[in-house]
Amino acid sequence: MTAVGAALWRKLRVHQVYGANTDVGKTIVSTLLVKALSERRKVGFLKPISTGPLDEADDRHVKQFTAGSTNVLTKCLYQFGEPVSPHLAAQSRQRPEDNELLSSIYDVLSSWSSKGVENALVETAGGVHSPGPNATSQADLYRPLRLPIVLVADSRLGGISSSISAFESLLIRGYDVQSVLLFQDDYYQNHKYLDLYFSKKDIPLLAFSKPPPRPMGNVIPDSQAENQEAMEDYYSSVLKNFDIDSLLKRMEVKCERRIEDLDQMAARAHEAIWYPFTQHQGMDPKDITVIESAYGDHFQTLKTSPDADKKNESHLLQSTFDGSASWWTQGLGHGNPELALTAAHAAGKYGHVMFAGTVHKPALSLAELLLQSLGNQRLRKVFYTDNGSTGMEAAIKMALRASCLRYDWDSSTEEIKVLGLKGSYHGDTIGVMDCSEPSTYNKKVEWYRGRGHWFDFPTIGMKGAQWHVTVPDMLVQELGEGEHFESLNEVFDLDKRLRSLTGQRYTRFIKETLDKLINKHGFKFGALIMEPVILGAGGMLFADPLFQRCLVDVVRSNPDLFGYTLGSMETPTNWSGLPIIFDEVFTGLYRLGRRTSASFLGVDADISVHAKLLTGGLIPLAVTLASKEIFDAFLSCDKSDALLHGHSYTAHPIGCHVAETSVRMMMDMENRGDWGSFQKLWQMTSTSRETTGHHIWSHWSLQLIQDLSCAKNVESVFAIGSVFSISLYDETGQSGYTSTAAKGLQQKLARGQSGLSQFNVHSRVLGNVLYLMASMKSTPHDLIRIETLLRNALLG
Amino acid sequence: MTAVGAALWRKLRVHQVYGANTDVGKTIVSTLLVKALSERRKVGFLKPISTGPLDEADDRHVKQFTAGSTNVLTKCLYQFGEPVSPHLAAQSRQRPEDNELLSSIYDVLSSWSSKGVENALVETAGGVHSPGPNATSQADLYRPLRLPIVLVADSRLGGISSSISAFESLLIRGYDVQSVLLFQDDYYQNHKYLDLYFSKKDIPLLAFSKPPPRPMGNVIPDSQAENQEAMEDYYSSVLKNFDIDSLLKRMEVKCERRIEDLDQMAARAHEAIWYPFTQHQGMDPKDITVIESAYGDHFQTLKTSPDADKKNESHLLQSTFDGSASWWTQGLGHGNPELALTAAHAAGKYGHVMFAGTVHKPALSLAELLLQSLGNQRLRKVFYTDNGSTGMEAAIKMALRASCLRYDWDSSTEEIKVLGLKGSYHGDTIGVMDCSEPSTYNKKVEWYRGRGHWFDFPTIGMKGAQWHVTVPDMLVQELGEGEHFESLNEVFDLDKRLRSLTGQRYTRFIKETLDKLINKHGFKFGALIMEPVILGAGGMLFADPLFQRCLVDVVRSNPDLFGYTLGSMETPTNWSGLPIIFDEVFTGLYRLGRRTSASFLGVDADISVHAKLLTGGLIPLAVTLASKEIFDAFLSCDKSDALLHGHSYTAHPIGCHVAETSVRMMMDMENRGDWGSFQKLWQMTSTSRETTGHHIWSHWSLQLIQDLSCAKNVESVFAIGSVFSISLYDETGQSGYTSTAAKGLQQKLARGQSGLSQFNVHSRVLGNVLYLMASMKSTPHDLIRIETLLRNALLG
Repeated sequence: MTAVGAALWRKLRVHQVYGANTDVGKTIVSTLLVKALSERRKVGFLKPISTGPLDEADDRHVKQFTAGSTNVLTKCLYQFGEPVSPHLAAQSRQRPEDNELLSSIYDVLSSWSSKGVENALVETAGGVHSPGPNATSQADLYRPLRLPIVLVADSRLGGISSSISAFESLLIRGYDVQSVLLFQDDYYQNHKYLDLYFSKKDIPLLAFSKPPPRPMGNVIPDSQAENQEAMEDYYSSVLKNFDIDSLLKRMEVKCERRIEDLDQMAARAHEAIWYPFTQHQGMDPKDITVIESAYGDHFQTLKTSPDADKKNESHLLQSTFDGSASWWTQGLGHGNPELALTAAHAAGKYGHVMFAGTVHKPALSLAELLLQSLGNQRLRKVFYTDNGSTGMEAAIKMALRASCLRYDWDSSTEEIKVLGLKGSYHGDTIGVMDCSEPSTYNKKVEWYRGRGHWFDFPTIGMKGAQWHVTVPDMLVQELGEGEHFESLNEVFDLDKRLRSLTGQRYTRFIKETLDKLINKHGFKFGALIMEPVILGAGGMLFADPLFQRCLVDVVRSNPDLFGYTLGSMETPTNWSGLPIIFDEVFTGLYRLGRRTSASFLGVDADISVHAKLLTGGLIPLAVTLASKEIFDAFLSCDKSDALLHGHSYTAHPIGCHVAETSVRMMMDMENRGDWGSFQKLWQMTSTSRETTGHHIWSHWSLQLIQDLSCAKNVESVFAIGSVFSISLYDETGQSGYTSTAAKGLQQKLARGQSGLSQFNVHSRVLGNVLYLMASMKSTPHDLIRIETLLRNALLG
Repeated sequence: MTAVGAALWRKLRVHQVYGANTDVGKTIVSTLLVKALSERRKVGFLKPISTGPLDEADDRHVKQFTAGSTNVLTKCLYQFGEPVSPHLAAQSRQRPEDNELLSSIYDVLSSWSSKGVENALVETAGGVHSPGPNATSQADLYRPLRLPIVLVADSRLGGISSSISAFESLLIRGYDVQSVLLFQDDYYQNHKYLDLYFSKKDIPLLAFSKPPPRPMGNVIPDSQAENQEAMEDYYSSVLKNFDIDSLLKRMEVKCERRIEDLDQMAARAHEAIWYPFTQHQGMDPKDITVIESAYGDHFQTLKTSPDADKKNESHLLQSTFDGSASWWTQGLGHGNPELALTAAHAAGKYGHVMFAGTVHKPALSLAELLLQSLGNQRLRKVFYTDNGSTGMEAAIKMALRASCLRYDWDSSTEEIKVLGLKGSYHGDTIGVMDCSEPSTYNKKVEWYRGRGHWFDFPTIGMKGAQWHVTVPDMLVQELGEGEHFESLNEVFDLDKRLRSLTGQRYTRFIKETLDKLINKHGFKFGALIMEPVILGAGGMLFADPLFQRCLVDVVRSNPDLFGYTLGSMETPTNWSGLPIIFDEVFTGLYRLGRRTSASFLGVDADISVHAKLLTGGLIPLAVTLASKEIFDAFLSCDKSDALLHGHSYTAHPIGCHVAETSVRMMMDMENRGDWGSFQKLWQMTSTSRETTGHHIWSHWSLQLIQDLSCAKNVESVFAIGSVFSISLYDETGQSGYTSTAAKGLQQKLARGQSGLSQFNVHSRVLGNVLYLMASMKSTPHDLIRIETLLRNALLG
């Protein structure tokens, strides 16, 4: 089945007719519009689902009253006899899956488009939230198509309310309402109120006279004919007396402007926008992907046909898989109505409220939830900031203060450094840039100066269908040649590996290096900072977890190495040696398949930073969690000893409320076993002796990893949790961020598969590395299609 | 009139009954609940607005069917005869203002509370958005009370849709729906669908049998009696056969938990939260203000009664003016439904979508709007980040690159500094901390090292009813004793002042200082950074605009001073001397009454940073706007020359869409003259000769400033735009951030005025400075009340 996306054609204008309630006159409005449009053009009327007796079906009504015109096509996809909500009417009948229904609609519209139909109406059943055949609310069901809306408002008593509420429900789901029509009722005068209401939103409203009353009871032939005549007269009179043409004109202008906007957006963006992480020289508007909207795992992007083809292209948009999870943030799907409502609720209840010296429920609930559920006994306090970079700025301030205080260092006279791994990346603000070794990212930042020591380290990847530990050439003497493993479970069996020769080698090497740096070079270290398991921006480096674990263990078990201290309190939660910061901004909160990435290492950090997936992929928010002992380092009688950090929107209620909801949703998915089919695949195909209780797994299949690891231009490949990463050989000999080796593969994914089951993937590369990321809601169906694209590109 | 806020009593539980539509059985539900509750307790039923014939009024119905009970009180506040929407029914009648209506409701409930009523229902009319007597939607009208909701769902065909939409409209406005009731209709079965829907949200639903049909047409006495009997039977049967008690129990638990939560929140926050800019030592839960919700300019805060009084206190919440505009962010009111909907629409249309190499409409529209409307001819490109601090990080990276490139400096071997003013503050990330001189804020940040020169400068303030320029003691010789002025218009008449002796002195002093720093000390400067007019966090310092203007002019007209350059392109928009960064994070976008604070100085920056008010006070977002020449400094064939900065949520669609909407709303307010009453007051009372076209004005009255400036413990005072600031003498001799001189005044505002017209203000202090900030929607009514509090505290 095709991935159905937003439906937009250059020459066919489609509107979806929604009613503010049932029985508000949707079909009469449709008939009127079809009649008016068909005077000059070919018009299609589509009723996807009709309930009630066949002779009252809405498509029949339209057909009947446009019978004189050869310009009108009508179609009903599914007809259910009972005049009840489709989810009940369809109960005993063969009913289409939601996706099937969308595909059918899309196909009908496509075929109309190719037949020269210029306008089409797709009429819904009942109100905006009336359930479709599978009980999905129509507003949700039809959302992937995101057709512009004609809303038929309710002219009856109470209709002001139901019309505005229906409008709001549509807005929350990202629809654009293009016009409102309703009957004129001079007693209730809803149209006057609503006209004022909608004109403020630049949405045209047309009120027209009411139809003649419907015959009651059993319809006898005579009265049916009478009724037919009365309706004919009615339609003629409305068309004559009300200015439907100017409404249609305004709707047409909106449709045209929408397409114009899309056509111009890339060029205008090229003019006005300074893009992040982008070399603009040589950049062209065509390099900019226009995202019309997004839903689930997919962007709706503007096709980039050559100008010459534009006029002939059938539809303008394509559904593109968001393969970078929108820079690693996306977890619960684009356009998630539950998150949209959650955000709106917090906005309506608070807006933003100041957070110094105050508390509001979303901030408190989120803080408590994280402290309780991240499984780290040390963490006691939550500090809020806006993004991973600022969260890490707070973390580094916390750690440096704690160590300077304990070791009685004067940071104004001596430089306190950090310990970390080569290839780390903690954000773009200058303070946290200083936490990484000199690299492409920072070398041209005028104020950057790396302050630390960064260990080179062994990495994990699959080659030739086996998991390898690759030891950097320079370290082979100290760390050995590198092992290989049958399964990731073995790689992560740290209890066992700690006792192995490799474990001993890692430990000795780390200790000796530190000893040299501190005692020979006189370095002072104030923190150990690591991204557990995967170093993201540094190039998707899969660190040998044993090395990271040994680093933590060495630091904690050798406090005397770092400074002289007068009996700091020994508690199970107090830091030892150095405060340890885990930057889980990217790796935490299920990105790697688990609630925290620290859990893979089996150690608790003293400070832990989370962002990205925290809000499920909706808005910026970051938390820096700290132990009591870190917090205590800022206590004094002097206000200026406090952590004087805090952004204006600290702990903004919308972010906190969305984050609490998102984290709970992801926990529920974990508890319900929503990822069971992925997990099972890793257990079944795993050939290892299973020694640990928790299996390592990925949304991406182990079989794919194994197959690709044997491809000729693949250096290595891995997958863990939602992350898939593939390193390609660079024939020019370059590697890292400046390599362009992965560009070719990226382009193949972007082109994707065309034809009937068109499918393509937006991805990001980091030099010679192409990575892909699933969301927590990605379906096996979509992922298998991507896997097929990868196989075709690399093995085909 | 009292500022009506959220209504919550310790012993009286109030619910508001909303209907999913008109005629869904609200009054029957109310009657049932009242009957069930009144078996054990005193219950009140309040119908604020009733339309239709008196003998059908809902309060009468409740009264009639609870006649046997002495436990029931009923009341209707306004009765209109026509059975139409209240905004029509009330047209020809005396109708209450919205605020008056809220006050009346609050007063009735208060009096019931003191009479031992334990439960009360407030029944609305029609559907959730049915208009009140002044045409305000009820959901908006009653929002300040934010009563928990009993939603009566619609059991008819189409009722699933209208019920869910009504629920969503309530959520968007920050209401909490506590239970859902509806009739059981076995044909349409809405209750089954809705039960599933609401149980997922932990909202209990009760479906019960339908009432007997109402008599049609004119009611004759006999049938009325019959009807009465039928209804009696009906109520008895429902009470017997449906488990209303357990529903009531669940609602009761929710009410209790709400109060428990509020009572515990401060203690729990004290446990879990690490607050920004807060010394936690000696901090106590009672120092934490619990914000239950917020609306307009007001927080709803938990009263902080001593524990002993808690049991007797009448109501728990008070309406507290948000006097810091929630850390300077708030512009369009808390809980603004339009912004909530805007946020939800973007969330529904996009969620977050990645922004490197892509474009979406909200980001493009906002960028273009800002470029077009900020009135700075130089600015051509918009770079997005998440907050003021990161926006300034990007700005400093931009400026340093541009100057290093033009002057061919190697920043790895020589330190490039910035020029600025003493007391500047640009954010909490370490890079921008380095842009400020050593101070309380940064002196204990281990990695801070100020890299720049910061000019001391003359400040503006009113003393003894006159505007004074205060020259720092150390500079009196160079800059003179300082002038005084009749009006702020004169202070800002820069064309005139530039030519004056003072202007010449400022210019000479700046030039000589720079000459010495550069040519004698060998400093290299890469940027001039300023907050135009007001230096916020540095202590609300009102810089003499003439000094800031001279600084810009000197820098721009002496390019040779800063470095040697091989013929850089001379264009009217190219930077000269140094790239000039205006940090308008706080001062921009109407905070000082104008679209930009740069406009006060009459110069265009090369880089301009905006945040805070950008989203109207809803969510974090920042923009760094730059000139083409700054942008061009990053162009090259080498990717690593690009501005390698970008947060994951860069240009998040929700932020951009809300920002575009907010900026347009504020521009509309400006164009409509919404602040005319404030502006007029400054023109009328101004005694100066008016020399400039644009008057300086403030939301705070000039009369207040003049009066307070004569108070004995006031050092100086000023107001401009929405900002009011007062410096108090510190008797201990301390000044600046560590002074506690303003604490007393802060506490007086927090206590506010009690009694009938209770009113209090939440404010923030910066050492000996107390400042207040209006939102763009603050009413003269509220501001005058605050002015009265200030007068009483300082002059009384």
